Amino acid sequence: MTHPDPRLSINQATLKRASLAEALQATVDAGVQAIGLWREPVQEVGLATAARMLADSGLRFSTHCRGGFFTLPEGPERRAALDDNRRAIDEAATLAAAGATGSQAVLVLVAGGIPDGSRDLAGARERVRDAIGELAPDAAAAGVTLAIEPLHPMYVSDRAVVSTLGQALDIAADFDPGVVGVTVDTFHVWWDPDVLAQIARAGRERRIATYQVCDWKTPLAADVLLSRHYPGEGVIDFAPLTRAVLDTGYDRDIEVEIFNEDVWSTEPLRAVQLAVRAFGALVSPQLHSR
Amino acid sequence: MTHPDPRLSINQATLKRASLAEALQATVDAGVQAIGLWREPVQEVGLATAARMLADSGLRFSTHCRGGFFTLPEGPERRAALDDNRRAIDEAATLAAAGATGSQAVLVLVAGGIPDGSRDLAGARERVRDAIGELAPDAAAAGVTLAIEPLHPMYVSDRAVVSTLGQALDIAADFDPGVVGVTVDTFHVWWDPDVLAQIARAGRERRIATYQVCDWKTPLAADVLLSRHYPGEGVIDFAPLTRAVLDTGYDRDIEVEIFNEDVWSTEPLRAVQLAVRAFGALVSPQLHSR
Repeated sequence: MTHPDPRLSINQATLKRASLAEALQATVDAGVQAIGLWREPVQEVGLATAARMLADSGLRFSTHCRGGFFTLPEGPERRAALDDNRRAIDEAATLAAAGATGSQAVLVLVAGGIPDGSRDLAGARERVRDAIGELAPDAAAAGVTLAIEPLHPMYVSDRAVVSTLGQALDIAADFDPGVVGVTVDTFHVWWDPDVLAQIARAGRERRIATYQVCDWKTPLAADVLLSRHYPGEGVIDFAPLTRAVLDTGYDRDIEVEIFNEDVWSTEPLRAVQLAVRAFGALVSPQLHSR
Repeated sequence: MTHPDPRLSINQATLKRASLAEALQATVDAGVQAIGLWREPVQEVGLATAARMLADSGLRFSTHCRGGFFTLPEGPERRAALDDNRRAIDEAATLAAAGATGSQAVLVLVAGGIPDGSRDLAGARERVRDAIGELAPDAAAAGVTLAIEPLHPMYVSDRAVVSTLGQALDIAADFDPGVVGVTVDTFHVWWDPDVLAQIARAGRERRIATYQVCDWKTPLAADVLLSRHYPGEGVIDFAPLTRAVLDTGYDRDIEVEIFNEDVWSTEPLRAVQLAVRAFGALVSPQLHSR
C-alpha cells in the first residue's frame, strides 16, 4: 500500500454516506493526517461532540464545507442565509481549534445560483460581494478565512454565480487576505485559459486558502454534480496546476474532494485508500520534486 | 402568428431530423428570410444541388456549420482534418454565392477536444492556432471568414478546447479580421463575467462573424450537448448580450440554433414558428428599440 502523503487531506464529501465517526475512523485507519468536514454530519452529532471526536482522532482540520448560498435579494430568506453563514463561521473556528497542530480555520463558500424566476446574473454576483462584506467582520472576529470557491461555469445558474478564479479574486480584493481568500479546485478551474496566471495572482495577493484536487472525465454524469473522479482517472494534468499553486508558497494541506456515486458506494476505508494512491501518483511527485 | 423578424436566421441544427429540402421549406413557409446550413445534409444531396436548392428558396445564407476538430497532433489524421476543412471552406463559398443578397460566407469552427489518451490541454490549444494558420490562406482565397466558436467550458475536454470569447479573440488576433473572426453564441458565453467587455473588444477588432441565440436551463439534459432551449425558456437575459453585440455595429443575421431532443421531435414548420415567436419576444425588442 502507498504510504499516505503527509499533506493529503480527505474532504468528507468523498465519504458522503459515512457518518462523522466513520469518516474520521477511515481517514485515521488509512494513515491520512488531515480531514475537511461538512456541516451536515457535524450538526448531526452537534458541534461540541464533533469537535471532541475530531480532537480524539488526532487529525488536522483543513476546511469546513460550506457556507455561501447568499445570492437572494434582501428579505428574510437572505437574512436567514447570512445568519446560517455566521453559524458556519463559528463551527469552522471551533473545529480548527479542536484539530491537531496545523489545522486551518477555513470556511469554503459556494456562492449560490440565480434565484428562481430571475435572469439577473450580474445582480446575483453583486449580492455575493455584498454578503461577503457583511460576513467579513464576523469571520475576522472568529479568526476564520472565508474561501470563495469559483465553481465550473456549468453550475453558474443553479449553484454558483462565481465562475472563475479571476472573478473570485476580484471579489476578495476588497477584503483583508486573512479574512477573505479563495478555494482553488482543479475540477472547477482546469479548463480556464487564464488559470495559471490567476493562480500566480492569487499567490501574489495571498489569497489561496485551500487547494482541492479531483479529476474531470467525459461523458459527464447525468447529474453533472457527480462527475468528479480520483486524480488520474480523467484528463486533468495535475502537474502544472499543482506546481503553480506550490510556486505561490502554498504550504497547507491539499484535499481530495470527490462527488461521485461510485466513490460513495465504496466502503469508506477503501475510498480513502484509493484517494491516497491517486494522490501519491499524481500530486505527491510535484510536492517532493522541489 | 408573430411576423418573423427580418434578421432572424434558422440554423439547420434546430431542425436536425429534417432533410435539406424540408429545412428550407419550413423556413420559407414560416416567412423567415435566412438559414444557416450544416455540412451533412448538404453533402447528402451534393453541394451543387444544395446550392441550387438554396438559390431556389430565395433565402439568405448566414453560416455554414461546421469546420474545426483539428486538435490532433501532426499525422495523417490531422492532414485529413485540414483537408476536410478546406472542403468546408469551398462549400461555404459556394453556398454564400447561391444565397440571396446579404448572404455571408462564414464557416463556423468548433476546435475539437483533447485527443484520446492525452492530458495536454495547452498543446491542443496551440494546435488550434496552428490549424487556423494553415487554413487562413485558403479561406482568404475563397472569400470565406472562419468564425472560431468558443464553446461552454463543460465541452472543453471532448469537443472544444476554445472556451471563452477572449481566448477565441486571442487566436484570431494573428489574422486578418475578414478571414478569421469569432462566433458569439449566447449559450456558450453568457456565464462569463467578462462577456460584455469581450463582445465590445470583438467589435473593436471587427471579429464578430455571426451571432447565435438560444437559452440555458437547468437541470442540464443527461447529454449536455442537448441542453439548448428557445430563448425565453431559460435564464439567459438576452437584452444586455444582444445590445452589446449590436453596439459593435453588428448588422448581420442572427441565428437560432438549438440542439434539443424535444425541439428535434417537433414538426419542422412548428419548430421554426416557435423560434420565430421566441426571437420576436426576446431578441427583436433589442433590434428595434434603437
